[in-house]
Amino acid sequence: MVWELTEAHVEALAIGAGILGTGGGGNPYYGKLYARRLLREGRRVCIVAPEEVPDDALVVSVGGMGAPTIGIERIHRGDEPLAALRALEQYLGRRATHLVPGEIGGANALRPLAVAALAELPVIDGDGMGRAFPELQMDTFAIYGIPATPAALADIEHNLVVFPYLRDALTLERYARAVTVQMGGAAGFAFPAMSGAELRRVVIPYTISLAVQLGEAVLSARREHADPIAAALAVTGGCLLFRGKVIDVERRLAAGFARGTMRLEGLGDDRGSELRIDFQNENLIARRDGQVIAAVPDLICLVDQETAEPVTTEVVRYGLRVAVLGIPAPAMLRTPEALAVVGPAAFGYVDVEYQPLPGIYGGDRLAAERGAATQ
Amino acid sequence: MVWELTEAHVEALAIGAGILGTGGGGNPYYGKLYARRLLREGRRVCIVAPEEVPDDALVVSVGGMGAPTIGIERIHRGDEPLAALRALEQYLGRRATHLVPGEIGGANALRPLAVAALAELPVIDGDGMGRAFPELQMDTFAIYGIPATPAALADIEHNLVVFPYLRDALTLERYARAVTVQMGGAAGFAFPAMSGAELRRVVIPYTISLAVQLGEAVLSARREHADPIAAALAVTGGCLLFRGKVIDVERRLAAGFARGTMRLEGLGDDRGSELRIDFQNENLIARRDGQVIAAVPDLICLVDQETAEPVTTEVVRYGLRVAVLGIPAPAMLRTPEALAVVGPAAFGYVDVEYQPLPGIYGGDRLAAERGAATQ
Repeated sequence: MVWELTEAHVEALAIGAGILGTGGGGNPYYGKLYARRLLREGRRVCIVAPEEVPDDALVVSVGGMGAPTIGIERIHRGDEPLAALRALEQYLGRRATHLVPGEIGGANALRPLAVAALAELPVIDGDGMGRAFPELQMDTFAIYGIPATPAALADIEHNLVVFPYLRDALTLERYARAVTVQMGGAAGFAFPAMSGAELRRVVIPYTISLAVQLGEAVLSARREHADPIAAALAVTGGCLLFRGKVIDVERRLAAGFARGTMRLEGLGDDRGSELRIDFQNENLIARRDGQVIAAVPDLICLVDQETAEPVTTEVVRYGLRVAVLGIPAPAMLRTPEALAVVGPAAFGYVDVEYQPLPGIYGGDRLAAERGAATQ
Repeated sequence: MVWELTEAHVEALAIGAGILGTGGGGNPYYGKLYARRLLREGRRVCIVAPEEVPDDALVVSVGGMGAPTIGIERIHRGDEPLAALRALEQYLGRRATHLVPGEIGGANALRPLAVAALAELPVIDGDGMGRAFPELQMDTFAIYGIPATPAALADIEHNLVVFPYLRDALTLERYARAVTVQMGGAAGFAFPAMSGAELRRVVIPYTISLAVQLGEAVLSARREHADPIAAALAVTGGCLLFRGKVIDVERRLAAGFARGTMRLEGLGDDRGSELRIDFQNENLIARRDGQVIAAVPDLICLVDQETAEPVTTEVVRYGLRVAVLGIPAPAMLRTPEALAVVGPAAFGYVDVEYQPLPGIYGGDRLAAERGAATQ
């Protein structure tokens, strides 16, 4: 299945990706504007289902890395990941045939589309996280054995860094993070590179479709004066964790990450309760009156209580009235090998046992509906 | 003029490079052992005068970067710069024909010799500093316009980082320093690459010869019960700034550098006076009773008061009795364009005016003696 991206898709995708970003992944707003401009200029982006990709394709993941707090203050050119891609291609001595988002959550859902429009390459309908995560070794590419290197980074001046060989993805995370901080806190990346056969083994399928459907459901509910939150839950397979008002946010920029904690005072049925959410770019742990009710890798998503507009960690502030959605993680993030990398303990919460939220992740549902055997 | 390096040269070079390191550049001891072992295994190293290098040669500067404090605790493999060289060569699509030390001061005088022995490449008799400096944009290669990139770094596990393009040497310094910290505080480097014609324009000539002669003079004076300090001054063109006892050292590891201040209480003719030396890996400013008597780029070198054995900033400690030598900087470091990069203000001492020490730097004297027109 191959489909062509429209402006309406981009509009919906920005909302869907914002929600799936679980507070992080960077605000999709600038990426949306840039992708829309490229489409208006007549450029085209095709989205390709994973099963359509030839075994010998050269698929490269592209996007941006850095703290979202910086992403909203320092506007990207938009072609940083393209510069990184070209540097990687030069190293490999071969041109990429397909792009794939590293994470469907936040700005990194949009950035590969702009690169695809510029480079005239198709984009895989899938990604490596099914959400957003703060660190790059936390994708299914790394978890399921795709070597992290060669890898490339580029900044707004097209300063270039190539990593021909590093021991593992965690090492790349450390090195690339240090370089990104030097690049002013924001960089475009191109890594990892993999074959089409490898991609099908490691990708979380249909997440671009999911994000578009999620955005369309929210927009449609708003137009029809229906409940956008119920619409979002239906598409994603999630449940409503809490409704409340943000009463405190403690946020700091540490080692290239936006870290912190927010507290919400319950409203409606949740009156009298308090929800506390810890985040590292993304929301990690939700505690209701001290009790853990959702934990990474499940998605903890703040949205506006009326419109379901996503609320990201870098803009969350006192007084916002929000709904907190709990969305089950993709099956590929719930295996023991994945939980070792993206479970609570991997973020330092060694005392939090991961209790999966009920339900099926929307992308997994789409894969089942389409009868895709991609894994 | 081409000469072959002997074990005796290596022994002398380690002392000479230690003195020219002005307290930094890393302790040459491990590098000496490694180079000596390679020579004993039958490997050979040829030293080539700059004027012998063909115009179309591909000359690459190699060495190590990191804080000397780490260099003495974490032993190098020795072939890290070779791994970086190979990565750079792969990027360039061309093999190096010659190596050149980035700095003749400290460990980086020895490291290129080991790489040369392993790679079977000749080494240029010269370097980019004529001493040691803490930051890599502070060499004559960068000051006189050789592009900083492409550049490569490798660590003890041969993790590799290539910088295909960065805006300038200061940017490379920032990026490479950040990567070096991630590499555990020590990395081998290969950069910049230049042609033989470019090398002759930017190299500080005859500094390997100078370091060997300096070491030989000290060793010979020790054997003959003459004054090793007077011998060192004669070869380098320096003067005796102070004799004293170290009474205080304040040292900290900050952002990958060993920074601090030491105080010396005068002995002999200097009794009653105090010398204070500020350092950032290397000794930068010497103040006698509050009055600046020597400043970077002139060389401020601590040596043992009896043996003239160099005393580096990472081993200097309370109670050591030392002589402080003031050696005039190479002419190429005293131009306005060089002083903008390596003068006191470049290290934050905006209130210190550079007053050149009298005399002629030993390498410049050798160049004049040999009638070399290398610049």
